[in-house]
Amino acid sequence: MADDVLGDEEEGLDERRVEAVLDAVDARDAARLTALLDPLHPADIADLLEQVSEEKRNALLSLLGREIDGEILSELSDSIREEVIDALPPEVVAEAVRDLDTDDVVDILEDLEAPAQAVILSALESADRVAVERALSYPEYSAGRLMQREVVVAPEHWTVGEMIDHLRSAEWLPDQFYHVILVDPRMKPVAYVTLGRLLSSRREIKLKDIAEDSFRTVSATEPEADVAYLFNQYHLISCPVVDESDRLVGVITIDDAMNVLDEEHEEDILRMAGVGDEASLSDTVIEAAKGRALWLGVNLLTAILASVVISFFAKTINQMVALAVLMPIVASMGGNAGTQSMTVAVRAIATRDLTARNAARVIRREVAVGAVNGLVFGILMAVVTALWFGVPVLAYVIGLAMLLTLMAAAFGGIVIPMALERLKIDPALASGPFVTTVTDVVGFFAFLGLASWMLM
Amino acid sequence: MADDVLGDEEEGLDERRVEAVLDAVDARDAARLTALLDPLHPADIADLLEQVSEEKRNALLSLLGREIDGEILSELSDSIREEVIDALPPEVVAEAVRDLDTDDVVDILEDLEAPAQAVILSALESADRVAVERALSYPEYSAGRLMQREVVVAPEHWTVGEMIDHLRSAEWLPDQFYHVILVDPRMKPVAYVTLGRLLSSRREIKLKDIAEDSFRTVSATEPEADVAYLFNQYHLISCPVVDESDRLVGVITIDDAMNVLDEEHEEDILRMAGVGDEASLSDTVIEAAKGRALWLGVNLLTAILASVVISFFAKTINQMVALAVLMPIVASMGGNAGTQSMTVAVRAIATRDLTARNAARVIRREVAVGAVNGLVFGILMAVVTALWFGVPVLAYVIGLAMLLTLMAAAFGGIVIPMALERLKIDPALASGPFVTTVTDVVGFFAFLGLASWMLM
Repeated sequence: MADDVLGDEEEGLDERRVEAVLDAVDARDAARLTALLDPLHPADIADLLEQVSEEKRNALLSLLGREIDGEILSELSDSIREEVIDALPPEVVAEAVRDLDTDDVVDILEDLEAPAQAVILSALESADRVAVERALSYPEYSAGRLMQREVVVAPEHWTVGEMIDHLRSAEWLPDQFYHVILVDPRMKPVAYVTLGRLLSSRREIKLKDIAEDSFRTVSATEPEADVAYLFNQYHLISCPVVDESDRLVGVITIDDAMNVLDEEHEEDILRMAGVGDEASLSDTVIEAAKGRALWLGVNLLTAILASVVISFFAKTINQMVALAVLMPIVASMGGNAGTQSMTVAVRAIATRDLTARNAARVIRREVAVGAVNGLVFGILMAVVTALWFGVPVLAYVIGLAMLLTLMAAAFGGIVIPMALERLKIDPALASGPFVTTVTDVVGFFAFLGLASWMLM
Repeated sequence: MADDVLGDEEEGLDERRVEAVLDAVDARDAARLTALLDPLHPADIADLLEQVSEEKRNALLSLLGREIDGEILSELSDSIREEVIDALPPEVVAEAVRDLDTDDVVDILEDLEAPAQAVILSALESADRVAVERALSYPEYSAGRLMQREVVVAPEHWTVGEMIDHLRSAEWLPDQFYHVILVDPRMKPVAYVTLGRLLSSRREIKLKDIAEDSFRTVSATEPEADVAYLFNQYHLISCPVVDESDRLVGVITIDDAMNVLDEEHEEDILRMAGVGDEASLSDTVIEAAKGRALWLGVNLLTAILASVVISFFAKTINQMVALAVLMPIVASMGGNAGTQSMTVAVRAIATRDLTARNAARVIRREVAVGAVNGLVFGILMAVVTALWFGVPVLAYVIGLAMLLTLMAAAFGGIVIPMALERLKIDPALASGPFVTTVTDVVGFFAFLGLASWMLM
């Protein structure tokens, strides 16, 4: 049937298939295992390897033997990939990565130790090896690491016909390419032509007459986060990479940029919650505990600082224990309002919506938002307090403390990430502890200070 | 020079240009304004409109007059776009959107009121109007809303030569396309051919012989978040969209999927911090305050609940005020540890790394992480307490309370998002309040309960 000729739609990873795969592994049935994995996309096989226990994973890999596909290694998350590569004989890994594009080989190699790197490098064809070594010479997380060497170029004076003949006679072409890059005689990229325009134009037309209006290149040393931003902002599909003398050295495609964008988001969200960079579900207990301990340690310091503030008012609390009952409410509301402002600020900095130009306006707006919610929740909490404890002055105190704390939280939540950004410290990573310190200290100080002044 | 023929590299948006644009607006110099905006990408002009104050924005728009480009409208964030469209005469908007792809028109129309929609719809060519109306008939945030109608298809029996001749004679082709979709006589997509393969194959070769091995379609009713996941997981560049009878109705391209992925992340991060969905820097104070008040309100309830727990132990606190000083430390550490586990869980659910299969293992790991950090910080805090207050029993109490709270935080942090996911409630949105309640209540109860038991 037509479907068979043209290739079946690939099947996804569901629970039943995972069960069947694990059964085949338990039965040490290599043929059945291969048959079950065969219809799966390498990304799904990688997910499967990540989801099963270490013991099952090793059993599965040893049953697969030499048949591991380089694409699967490329799809694995870093921590699992290291483990898998350590478990495989070096020559199996070397064989597996031979057919990958150079950007994927670089991605795998950069996390390995030098001896393992050497084994794999020596197995590559020499042109690929040179390309991979060159990519590894660029800084980590740079465009040079992300790019693939495989590019389709043409001199700017070629016609459509010459280009098509060249492509038809090419021995080898990249798996995926979306543009032909036009270069000048010094290999400086000057424009690009989409394949759609190339296909729909007559043979005699000159390539430079059907080049796209807009054209961008990135430098090989540019950070990959900036590259991902460019793709997202300008809807690029691929982008040529140039060296310091503006010569073409590779190309970055949108699927790699999408991957970087995804990782950047992941990093931001985990950093904001104080979870270390390396966190993945397959980290060991000790790795995960270590990654989180740093932030908990910093938080312990700020919490102790807040306790010191409370201890100044120990006498006041002794005279009215209701203060001890109510004070966490003020601090907790301040902490949450601060986190809200901080999250908005960190996101707006990442998306470049918050700049020096609109900073003053955004700060004013945040403080106004803090004031509005401070009034609303201050009044609400004053009513609750009056009903609960029947002490009107205590109601005024908590209402006023709430207003002050929520305004301070909003101000701190927006100003702290902006200041960190200016100091070149990642706001997603470092804002939390500072904002919490502000909201805790202001919260306890405002509430207990007002109480000892108005009540005593 | 060659560069001029081929189109200059576009210029970016920097402070100096923003200043110059605002000067031109103040001077009401339309010619200079146009000259300054001309080299900018529509995405940068949209950013500029978002960054300036409402007053400047309106002045700029009225100076631009009828020359607003549809791409700029398409790039604006939702809230600003609504304001801009309200400010422009309907016929200017209608003219501006005429040249956009149907997916971009849908994106603009779906946020407008019915009368404004009608004006724009009536200005479209009839084929486009039908396509847009059809897309609007699909649910919000579905593949049907995201897709563009403009597709390049071919019968499966065509040859490369027939295809190229067809493309060369086509009156109109999409701006960007990356595949030719092969369809059977009932318009069911059966495979696709990359343009690279098409260009590099001889004219007599049959399209189905150079079709890609792997091929996926999505249903028009599929949620856009799932579509973005597919693109990211399988590195798709474009994906045909089919209706309920498997007929081709459109195509989704990776740049749209990347956009959805970006928005999903943004939504997750803002929801986890309790900032409403609509938050953008250009929301008014009241809109922003409202969006955040919901979460603050929920937090107020959990904070009051924690206060009630404290009030049970008012007598104990009265006998030893050090308890009031130290108790926020336990709750704060619990809150942070809970947020860490919760963030890991919410992310792992979103990336589909956390499934029924590995749930038990992940829960065990999280609780073990909580125990390790509970021990470390429990001992640390016990030492600090012994030195600060000189009461050894108080040191034991806080150490033990810290251990219990951090374990409960880890357990709650992972189990609550998983339970919400199973109940089809967005874990990013709803986990926070539940986790905070657990950590506050357990934190205060463990510390004060142990204290009144061991100290009194």
